[in-house]
Amino acid sequence: MSRSKERANQGSTTGSDFLQLDIGQAPPGGRTDWLADRLRAAIADGTLPVGSRLPASRVLAGELRVSRGLVTEAYQRLAETGQVSGRGRGGTVVVAAPPRVTTPPPVPARGGLVDALRAVPCRIDLSPGVPDLTAFPRTAWLQAERRVLAGLTPADFGYGNPQGAPALRTAVAGWLARNRGIRADPDEVVIVAGVAQALGLLAQVLRDDGAARRIAVEDPGSLGARQQLEYGGLEPVPVPVDEHGLDVAALRASGAGAVLLTPAHQFPTGVVLDGERRRDLLGWAADGGLVIEDDYDAEHRYDRAPVPALRALLPEGVCYAGSVSKLLAPALRLGWLLVPPRLAEAVTAAKRYADLGNPVLAQLVLARLMDSGELERHLRFVRRRHRRRRDVMLRAIAERLPGARVHGAAAGLHLMVTFDGAAIEDTALAAAALDLGVKAHPLSWHRLGAGPPGLILGYAAGSTGDIEEGIAALGTALRKISGRGKVSGRERQPRPGSRVVRG
Amino acid sequence: MSRSKERANQGSTTGSDFLQLDIGQAPPGGRTDWLADRLRAAIADGTLPVGSRLPASRVLAGELRVSRGLVTEAYQRLAETGQVSGRGRGGTVVVAAPPRVTTPPPVPARGGLVDALRAVPCRIDLSPGVPDLTAFPRTAWLQAERRVLAGLTPADFGYGNPQGAPALRTAVAGWLARNRGIRADPDEVVIVAGVAQALGLLAQVLRDDGAARRIAVEDPGSLGARQQLEYGGLEPVPVPVDEHGLDVAALRASGAGAVLLTPAHQFPTGVVLDGERRRDLLGWAADGGLVIEDDYDAEHRYDRAPVPALRALLPEGVCYAGSVSKLLAPALRLGWLLVPPRLAEAVTAAKRYADLGNPVLAQLVLARLMDSGELERHLRFVRRRHRRRRDVMLRAIAERLPGARVHGAAAGLHLMVTFDGAAIEDTALAAAALDLGVKAHPLSWHRLGAGPPGLILGYAAGSTGDIEEGIAALGTALRKISGRGKVSGRERQPRPGSRVVRG
Repeated sequence: MSRSKERANQGSTTGSDFLQLDIGQAPPGGRTDWLADRLRAAIADGTLPVGSRLPASRVLAGELRVSRGLVTEAYQRLAETGQVSGRGRGGTVVVAAPPRVTTPPPVPARGGLVDALRAVPCRIDLSPGVPDLTAFPRTAWLQAERRVLAGLTPADFGYGNPQGAPALRTAVAGWLARNRGIRADPDEVVIVAGVAQALGLLAQVLRDDGAARRIAVEDPGSLGARQQLEYGGLEPVPVPVDEHGLDVAALRASGAGAVLLTPAHQFPTGVVLDGERRRDLLGWAADGGLVIEDDYDAEHRYDRAPVPALRALLPEGVCYAGSVSKLLAPALRLGWLLVPPRLAEAVTAAKRYADLGNPVLAQLVLARLMDSGELERHLRFVRRRHRRRRDVMLRAIAERLPGARVHGAAAGLHLMVTFDGAAIEDTALAAAALDLGVKAHPLSWHRLGAGPPGLILGYAAGSTGDIEEGIAALGTALRKISGRGKVSGRERQPRPGSRVVRG
Repeated sequence: MSRSKERANQGSTTGSDFLQLDIGQAPPGGRTDWLADRLRAAIADGTLPVGSRLPASRVLAGELRVSRGLVTEAYQRLAETGQVSGRGRGGTVVVAAPPRVTTPPPVPARGGLVDALRAVPCRIDLSPGVPDLTAFPRTAWLQAERRVLAGLTPADFGYGNPQGAPALRTAVAGWLARNRGIRADPDEVVIVAGVAQALGLLAQVLRDDGAARRIAVEDPGSLGARQQLEYGGLEPVPVPVDEHGLDVAALRASGAGAVLLTPAHQFPTGVVLDGERRRDLLGWAADGGLVIEDDYDAEHRYDRAPVPALRALLPEGVCYAGSVSKLLAPALRLGWLLVPPRLAEAVTAAKRYADLGNPVLAQLVLARLMDSGELERHLRFVRRRHRRRRDVMLRAIAERLPGARVHGAAAGLHLMVTFDGAAIEDTALAAAALDLGVKAHPLSWHRLGAGPPGLILGYAAGSTGDIEEGIAALGTALRKISGRGKVSGRERQPRPGSRVVRG
C-alpha cells in the first residue's frame, strides 16, 4: 500500500525520540531483552501502530550508542513472536499484535483482525477453516489441466459465460446430488469465487432489492461472514445459537427478512440444526423469509450421519453456497451458489458485473476432478487424515487444557473449547499463545453477545506433532494468564480432564 | 437461469397457436423455407422473444400436420443463422437476434447486447477486443504451472493476500516499467479479475465516497465500460471524442469529478490523445479531477511509437487499469489496478470483500511468464500476426466496402469504419451481416451522441481467410440494406476504394 510506504519512508528518516528510550535503564547483560520489551510495549500501546516502520537499525543503534547487532537481534525477537516483519529495502514493519486488542470492533478496517492474524508469522497455526493443504493433489491437478489445455478451442480462451463454464456447472450439480442430496439443474448453478463472493453478491442483491436490509446471523457465528454482509450494506442482527442450533423463535422475533446460517455444522460451535428447528426454519422460509445456507465444510464428517442440506428440502426458499476452500484449497477461490428462481437474474447480473465470471481454466480442471471421481478420492483421503488429527487434538486437550469443554468435534475442520467458569479474557489467552508462536482464534471474536471465554481450534491443517505442541503451548499460555490472578479460585484447580460435549 | 428454464418448461407444453401458422400459405416444395421464414419473423417481432423456447418439433409437426423432419430442418436453418440454439433435453431456445434492435437501451438488462451477441453462434467473428487465441502459449503455461505447483508451500494454498500474490505484483511492476514507462512499487499494485472488475471496484469506492457520482466517459466509448460504471451506481456523462482525443474543455464544462478514458488507443475510434490534450487533462487532474486510464490494448501497436501512460506522468491523479485479456486471453480474468495513494486503502478493501483476492495459481504462473520473458516473446509473436491480419483487413475493406472510412488502424486489435454520408442504420447492417454468419459491433452501440453509421471490426482473432470472407460478407450485407433504398444517391455509387484515416 502506498500509505504504508509513505509511513515507511517517513520512518527511514525518523529516529527513536518518540520511543523515549533510555538505555541507562537496561540491566547489564540484558540490553537486547530490554530493548525488545520496550518495543513490544510501544507496539501494544500504539506508539508504534500496525503498519508503521521501526527506526532503521543503524539509526537506532547510533542514537542509543549500542552496537547495530544488538538492535538487529532485538528486532529479530519481535519478528519471531510475530509483531514485526520484513527486512531489507522495505525496513522492519509492525505487522500486527491483533490478539492484544481486547474488544474487536464489529467490522475492523480493511478486513481487520482475521486478515491481520493471518499475516502474522507463527510456528504453529491452529486457525480454523483450512484443510490439510499438504495433501493438495498437485499431480492430479496438473494432469487434469494438461488435458483441459489440450482440449480447449480458441473460443474457450475468450470471454466465457459469466454464470460459469457449463461443464463445471454440470459437474457441481452432480457433486451436490451425490454429496449433499441436492437436486439442481446445471442452469441453476452460479460459479463464484468462493463463499465470500457468494455472500457479497447476495448482500448486493438484497440491498438493491430493499426487502431485506436487516439480515439475521448466528451468534456466535463467523466474524468474516458478518463483515462480508456489513461491507455489502446489510445490517446483521445477531440471533442466539444453543445446543439445538439457531433459535428460530428469536429469528421470528427479530423481524429480519433473511438469515445466514451454517445448519450442517454451525460455525464455530459445531452444533447441528436439529429436526424441530429445521422444520421451524423451513416454515419461516415458507412464510417469505430467505434462508442463506453456508455449507462451508459439510463434506467433512466423522462420527455421525450426513445432514441433508436445507436447500434439498426447499429450493424456492433457500440460497445455498459452498466452495472448494475446505475440499481442496482456499487459494483456488472457486465455489458455487444456488438461489431461488426469483433471485436468479439479479444474482447472475451481479456476478457478471463483479468480474465477468470466474477464470475458465481452473473451472474446467475442477470439473474434470469432480467428474473423474478424483475429488471424492481426495476427500476420502483427507477425511481419514483429519479424523486422526482431531483425535490427537482431543487427547492433547484432555491432557493439557484442564477445565476445557470441547464442542462440535463430530464434523468439520475445527473444534471449539470453552472455559466455562473461568474469569479469563480469551483474547488475552490467544495473545499469550501468539507470544509462544501459536495462533488460534479467540471465541469472543466470533460472538456479539455474552458467553464463556473460549478458543476455536483448527486441527486439519497441521501435523499431529504440531497439534500436540500447539495445545501444550496453549496450556502454558493458560497457566500464564491464569497465574496473573484472573482465574477464579474454583478454576485455578486443574480438573482431571476436559469434558467433550456433543462429540 | 431458472427463469429461462421456467420459460422452457412452459414451452414444452405449449403448442404453436400463438405463432398463427397456416401451412396452407406455404408454397409447394418450399415448406421448410416458409416455416423458417415465419419463425424468423416471429423472433424479429418479439412473438418469440430471446430466451423463449420453440415448440417441441414433435408438437409443432403434429399441429401443422407435416413431418417432424421438416420442422427439425427449419429449426436447423435458424440455428445456422444464429437465431436459435440448443437441442435435446433443453429444447431449442431463441438465443438472440440482437442487431435487429434498432436503438439499444443504455444499459440492457443482464449485460445485454454484447453478452447476447457473444452467445450467438456464427461462422466468422469480427467482434473487437479479442487477441489471437489460437496462439495462447499452452505449453509455456503448463510448464510454468508445473514449476509453480512444485514450488508451492502448503501455506501458499491457503488464504492469500487479497491485494494479490507478492510475486505477481513485483512482476507486474516490472512489466509496466518495461512496457508502459510506469514506475510503480509492487505495494501499489492491486491484482484484479480484469479491467471489468477494476472499474467495478473503482465505481464502488467513488460511489461510497460520494465525491464523484458523475463520471465522464468518452463518446463514442466502450458500451461495456459504461455499463460497468452504471451498474456500480455512477452516472456516466458523455464527453465527445474528436481527432485529438477526448475534448478536455467539454470535460471541464461537464462538472464531472472523474473521467474514464482510453488515451493510448481510444475505443473505438483508435485516436491517440494528443500532446496538448494530455497537458490539459493532467492540469484538470492536478486541480482535483480523477483520471481513470483504461490501458486495455496499449501493448499492441504497429506503425507508431509507443504512447506513454498518463499514470507515468501523474501517479497521484491517475488510476491505471490493465489486464492480460488482450495479451493472453480474456478467459484468464487477470489484471492489475494502480490507484493514487488516497484511494489505496478503500480499493484494497473493496477487492478483499469482492472475493478475498484472485486465485493464486494463475497469479504465480503469470508472474513466471512475465519474469522469464515468455510473455514478451508471446507479445512479439502475436504482434506480427496481428499486423498481418490488420493489413489483410485493410485490403479487403478497400476492395469490398466502398465508401468506408477506416480509423485507428495503427494500433490495437480492431479498427473502426464509418460510412460518412450514408443514410443507413449500422444496426441493420450488423443484423444483415449476422444473417450471413458474420458478427461485428455496430458503432452506434458504443455511442451516445449523434454520428455517422459505422462498424467496429476486430482483426486479431480470426485467420486471414476468415477476415477476407467476413469483409466480403459485410460488403454483401451493405449492398443488401443499401438496396432497400436507405442509402443516399451519392453513396449508392461505390467509390473506387476506402480511405484510411489517421493510419
